[in-house]
Amino acid sequence: MEKIEPRTLAGFMELLPEEQVIFNYMKDTIRKSYEKFGFLPLDTPVIEYSEVLLAKAGGETEKQIYRFTKGDTDLSLRFDLTVPLAKFVAQNLYNLSYPFRRYQIGKVFRGERPQKGRYREFYQCDIDIIGDGELSVLNDAEIPSVIYTTFKNLGFNNFTIRVNNRKVLGGFFAELGYEDKIADILRIIDKVEKIGIDTVKEIFVDMGISSENIDKIIDFISIKGTPAEIITKLRSLNVKNELFNTGVDELEAVSNNVESFGLPSNNYKIDLTIARGLDYYTGTVYETVLNDYPQIGSVCSGGRYDNLAEFYTNKKLPGVGISIGLTRLFYQLKEAGLLPKVSKSIAKTMIIPMTNDMEYCIKIATELRNNDINTEIYYNEKSLKGKFNYANKLEIPFVIVIGEDEINTNSVTIKNMATGEQVKVNNDISEILKVLEN
Amino acid sequence: MEKIEPRTLAGFMELLPEEQVIFNYMKDTIRKSYEKFGFLPLDTPVIEYSEVLLAKAGGETEKQIYRFTKGDTDLSLRFDLTVPLAKFVAQNLYNLSYPFRRYQIGKVFRGERPQKGRYREFYQCDIDIIGDGELSVLNDAEIPSVIYTTFKNLGFNNFTIRVNNRKVLGGFFAELGYEDKIADILRIIDKVEKIGIDTVKEIFVDMGISSENIDKIIDFISIKGTPAEIITKLRSLNVKNELFNTGVDELEAVSNNVESFGLPSNNYKIDLTIARGLDYYTGTVYETVLNDYPQIGSVCSGGRYDNLAEFYTNKKLPGVGISIGLTRLFYQLKEAGLLPKVSKSIAKTMIIPMTNDMEYCIKIATELRNNDINTEIYYNEKSLKGKFNYANKLEIPFVIVIGEDEINTNSVTIKNMATGEQVKVNNDISEILKVLEN
Repeated sequence: MEKIEPRTLAGFMELLPEEQVIFNYMKDTIRKSYEKFGFLPLDTPVIEYSEVLLAKAGGETEKQIYRFTKGDTDLSLRFDLTVPLAKFVAQNLYNLSYPFRRYQIGKVFRGERPQKGRYREFYQCDIDIIGDGELSVLNDAEIPSVIYTTFKNLGFNNFTIRVNNRKVLGGFFAELGYEDKIADILRIIDKVEKIGIDTVKEIFVDMGISSENIDKIIDFISIKGTPAEIITKLRSLNVKNELFNTGVDELEAVSNNVESFGLPSNNYKIDLTIARGLDYYTGTVYETVLNDYPQIGSVCSGGRYDNLAEFYTNKKLPGVGISIGLTRLFYQLKEAGLLPKVSKSIAKTMIIPMTNDMEYCIKIATELRNNDINTEIYYNEKSLKGKFNYANKLEIPFVIVIGEDEINTNSVTIKNMATGEQVKVNNDISEILKVLEN
Repeated sequence: MEKIEPRTLAGFMELLPEEQVIFNYMKDTIRKSYEKFGFLPLDTPVIEYSEVLLAKAGGETEKQIYRFTKGDTDLSLRFDLTVPLAKFVAQNLYNLSYPFRRYQIGKVFRGERPQKGRYREFYQCDIDIIGDGELSVLNDAEIPSVIYTTFKNLGFNNFTIRVNNRKVLGGFFAELGYEDKIADILRIIDKVEKIGIDTVKEIFVDMGISSENIDKIIDFISIKGTPAEIITKLRSLNVKNELFNTGVDELEAVSNNVESFGLPSNNYKIDLTIARGLDYYTGTVYETVLNDYPQIGSVCSGGRYDNLAEFYTNKKLPGVGISIGLTRLFYQLKEAGLLPKVSKSIAKTMIIPMTNDMEYCIKIATELRNNDINTEIYYNEKSLKGKFNYANKLEIPFVIVIGEDEINTNSVTIKNMATGEQVKVNNDISEILKVLEN
């Protein structure tokens, strides 16, 4: 028979089990961290009506969509988890309790040109808090705590959550008379870390911004210090613009509660250069960087928006949320040798039967499983060395050998695969558990 | 702005959070049960090359595929988890340890005509054990134990795992001289429960089977009894066919170990009418029925196959596996009012701040979260009644009220939402935990 070459598409991550275990550990950790704050699960379809999914899309996004027809229906694969959330909330307006706090962890699809670290199918891990008409800024204040808890639980310590407020930026630039150029200026400022301050100045000159105002902008985005110091400096600028002052109040409300939320001060920073690319955001914005690996870029970003679902409903639904791009994060951590150090095995013990008396082995395995010990029995015929190699490769911590001698003396021989230590104990389950727990 | 109607495609399940919590509980329970037996996780892409995915498909399956092109590439969405497993193993032949035990839980896509209880996007929860050239029948023997553990953990007691062996059926019919009609006969026998024995007889007559042989076949599939009794009866038929006798040996090996695996005898049965529709299976086959709800059909099925990946590789890869169609099962259980009774809430406590002093509330919330208590704070302004309604709707078990009095006396007031009982305790975390644990 002619064979077909088994291939996986470029840009689609498919891991060997030993790596999938680590991936799942990270996914589970993120989920548990989100649930710690009471976020509720949602699982929207992968496929939606194109009309619904692309209500708001355009330009680059639309080109990347996996879009096709089945019968007469124009379908698309979801490209993020925010549009499906907007659809879901608009559809279930009166079935939900507000603030509606939901998380969704799932694959999204973008037909980008595949390149190193970029995926066409990737997991996003999102939380959003949606208000019914209004939403207290204290919800914004809680988000850094969710980010902190999540990355701490993932095993990171040296990371910084950078927070800003687009009202502060927008209000400041409006005050300078650039109300019509805010979006452009924000886009440039957002790149300052990448392209450097001199290039930013040049672009501003090209935009027709006066050198006096360029200096003011540069001075403004250069404000540094503790959150309290930055807030004080912002107030001392005496900007009259109302949007600006609302933004400073919000930034203060978010920053004021950081300590109560248990965040060490070095994990939180106000950074006035953070603007986030999307026009979508209207208030608080967040980015998170691993300080030892700034080249990875932001590993968790998001912000406050005024209106989640304006394409589907007249109801005003303000929200705040963040997203972790887990597939890309996993890839980057793997490249940097930074993956969490967790056991690669699912089984905690493997039983090797040395005789044909399976009953004895199976009974022990069943008791172990009933006591929450993941247990595998190696049934196939193979040399003892081969069986131990198998356990070694899978990094199974304990091997239990059961031969004639063990069966005759109602015992088992347990080998600790890490230390090589071997003990023979009575086949009483509590005796066995004692060895496994050491 | 013109609004777009927010719609979800027919045949795509999208649950409200309170149901999603139960769905996730079932998904997690299945995963944990699979892991208890040491199965390793796999997560293949949703999209594959059509050439690869459809290597073996044809007819009905191919019509149901979501297939489309992106650029020049002919793509398809996976329609099961077995073909992606075959691809994966063929691709990673020398990176895997055998027997390769993997589980995969994920969405698959079939563009069937949507009808009650049928979904176009649905979760499959699969396990398979793949051997490198050969695979001991003891692996087949373990599968009923995995099914039993899984459904037991899901909260079921009254279900039966029905087991048969296609070699027994095939060998028996070959002995009668119908070697060329085995596939047809199997298909008919598989339907006997649905269409009744008389219709089966009529079809056999139409097929040109002699009345003597029809009687033999009916007698054969009517053999009932305990597994040991059935095995004895099968042996007493004195069938000379080698395939038949191998099949009986295998059936015996599977049935012999049922008790050691801890299965109560009423959860396991040999049923000679089980054939499974797919030609794919070559030995042991499994079905599982909830005895109080036989109309649901089999909730977990599978079997032994000779060669997993023959379309991709010359290497012989025998395997055995099962699948649970979780989306359909969830729907059926919901219809029957049989969903597991689990808490619908993610948060265990909700804090209601009665003053503007958030610091006190946030510190308590942070301590609770650090002690693994999922905790939400209700930040938005609303009447006290409105806040309690919210907690009620979300079925959050405990509400912690913090007003001026509590802050002044370093205490919290905790209300048990189920009993209505309310206590005021010191704000010491261990005091609070004591109340929550009661």
